Amino acid sequence: MIALVVDALNYVGIVAFAVSGALKAGEKDMDLLGFMVLGFSTALAGGIIRDVLLGRTPPVNLTYLPYPLTAIAASLATFALYDKVNKYRDVVLYPDALGLGAFSAIGADVAFSRGLGPFGVAVMAAVTAAGGGVVRDVLAAEVPLILRREIYATAAAVGGFIYIALYYAFGRGVALLGTTAAVTAIRLASLRLGWELPHRGRRLGALNAGP
Amino acid sequence: MIALVVDALNYVGIVAFAVSGALKAGEKDMDLLGFMVLGFSTALAGGIIRDVLLGRTPPVNLTYLPYPLTAIAASLATFALYDKVNKYRDVVLYPDALGLGAFSAIGADVAFSRGLGPFGVAVMAAVTAAGGGVVRDVLAAEVPLILRREIYATAAAVGGFIYIALYYAFGRGVALLGTTAAVTAIRLASLRLGWELPHRGRRLGALNAGP
Amino acid sequence: MIALVVDALNYVGIVAFAVSGALKAGEKDMDLLGFMVLGFSTALAGGIIRDVLLGRTPPVNLTYLPYPLTAIAASLATFALYDKVNKYRDVVLYPDALGLGAFSAIGADVAFSRGLGPFGVAVMAAVTAAGGGVVRDVLAAEVPLILRREIYATAAAVGGFIYIALYYAFGRGVALLGTTAAVTAIRLASLRLGWELPHRGRRLGALNAGP
Repeated sequence: MIALVVDALNYVGIVAFAVSGALKAGEKDMDLLGFMVLGFSTALAGGIIRDVLLGRTPPVNLTYLPYPLTAIAASLATFALYDKVNKYRDVVLYPDALGLGAFSAIGADVAFSRGLGPFGVAVMAAVTAAGGGVVRDVLAAEVPLILRREIYATAAAVGGFIYIALYYAFGRGVALLGTTAAVTAIRLASLRLGWELPHRGRRLGALNAGP
Repeated sequence: MIALVVDALNYVGIVAFAVSGALKAGEKDMDLLGFMVLGFSTALAGGIIRDVLLGRTPPVNLTYLPYPLTAIAASLATFALYDKVNKYRDVVLYPDALGLGAFSAIGADVAFSRGLGPFGVAVMAAVTAAGGGVVRDVLAAEVPLILRREIYATAAAVGGFIYIALYYAFGRGVALLGTTAAVTAIRLASLRLGWELPHRGRRLGALNAGP
Repeated sequence: MIALVVDALNYVGIVAFAVSGALKAGEKDMDLLGFMVLGFSTALAGGIIRDVLLGRTPPVNLTYLPYPLTAIAASLATFALYDKVNKYRDVVLYPDALGLGAFSAIGADVAFSRGLGPFGVAVMAAVTAAGGGVVRDVLAAEVPLILRREIYATAAAVGGFIYIALYYAFGRGVALLGTTAAVTAIRLASLRLGWELPHRGRRLGALNAGP
């Protein structure tokens, strides 16, 4: 039952991430293939990198068809309805936050079951949830957004530690669902409250702003 | 015999792809190492990524010496004869199309022999044939060409499906050769006839083109 | 004893590489996460890519905690003392050269012990030592420095051949230490004497420099 909820949220994440990739493809004047590749990569490259790092090949995101087909369908729909989706892009932030939580929980779950320690579990949670966005931005020849602004990969990494704590206290089901909920909550709170990690450049920018 | 033809076309592809990488290195004012790395990557990174995704490590493109040495030799030759090669760069499009076909066929062959389904075979054909060009453009800090214009990775992905159909109908030899021929033909036709996948940005561009 | 020296120099390399990544993060106005990710990647992504290519998963740089924690600590220290570290960034070139040597030796050692031939060993030495810098620059949306200027990856690749020669002549210990020393010396000499690999673009630049 709990696994079913996390699985459903996983699909929510695939769709939301694929839409964010496809919108970036549109921004960069890519063609239909670009929409599909960026949608696919944003949604599934994080899990693929995780699987390669853990030696789980071929990666499940390539062999379990419902995942890539969902990502590609969402990318094609974004292409077809580009102006409309682009207009409501801020609405996507909510399913995107759910996806971040589900991806973080699933990444932690996979890494933990392979015997990684807490640090490795946190890294794999972050890679699963935020790696796709990094690939999207690299393919768009941009500095990855998650390295510059917003609490995003950080929330997913924290999810790795939450997963382990919940796992030992309440078992796997609660760990999966609780991690998803906690990471989603951190992400939404950071959006609403404008939380950001500290910067260095800003101060330098101020220094450079003289006449 | 058929395997020999495909193997010969594979070398044609390595040379043509390495030249395209080395020309990009020249464009970006890279040094001799940059020429070798971009030539090597354009020719062989697609196959390396394929092997990593399929768990075939170390990748054949690193351990079977004739492949990397051919790529590096072609890169050095492009460095030495830069102005001449650059002047005739459009001529390279023809061996490049042959290479695209051979790489697509070989990628499909490897993936199919590892038991992947049609979707996975198509993705691996495209990754083998077009992944190197993506790495080239990322190392040049550019948006990958194949995501913006031209029928390229798309032709290679279609090759994956062609391979499977030919394999079941006529066996492996015909599948290898037929896929190579079909992908090369699609690519050359798309160049000659100016085929492109649909865009979104263009329309937006038109909207933005007002006074 | 020799292994201890190389291990100590390995930590010198991790710190120096992480500082170089963190400084790049500051240059690009990244936040605290960006500092950690670029510091971590510059120091450890080369070894991670090497391990993935050799099928050693999960990579030691993720599972052996002292490595990532050292890289992250150095990144945080660079963040905290940014102006000071940035001011003395040229000083970092010396430990960086030591790290280049140690990473090259360790990469060659790992590849050689997995049975790779001389070419593969040289590539793995270069990937271990210079791969992190490439990842740093790609994440900063820049053309990798090592492809444009300076003897860097080239020195590390040469280290692969030096390792094999020393291994057969004097055994593993001398190979590790001798490679570290030789690569460091090549790198420092190239810095002091302004050695560069030949370019093409420069001449073209001169041709384009007309009125």
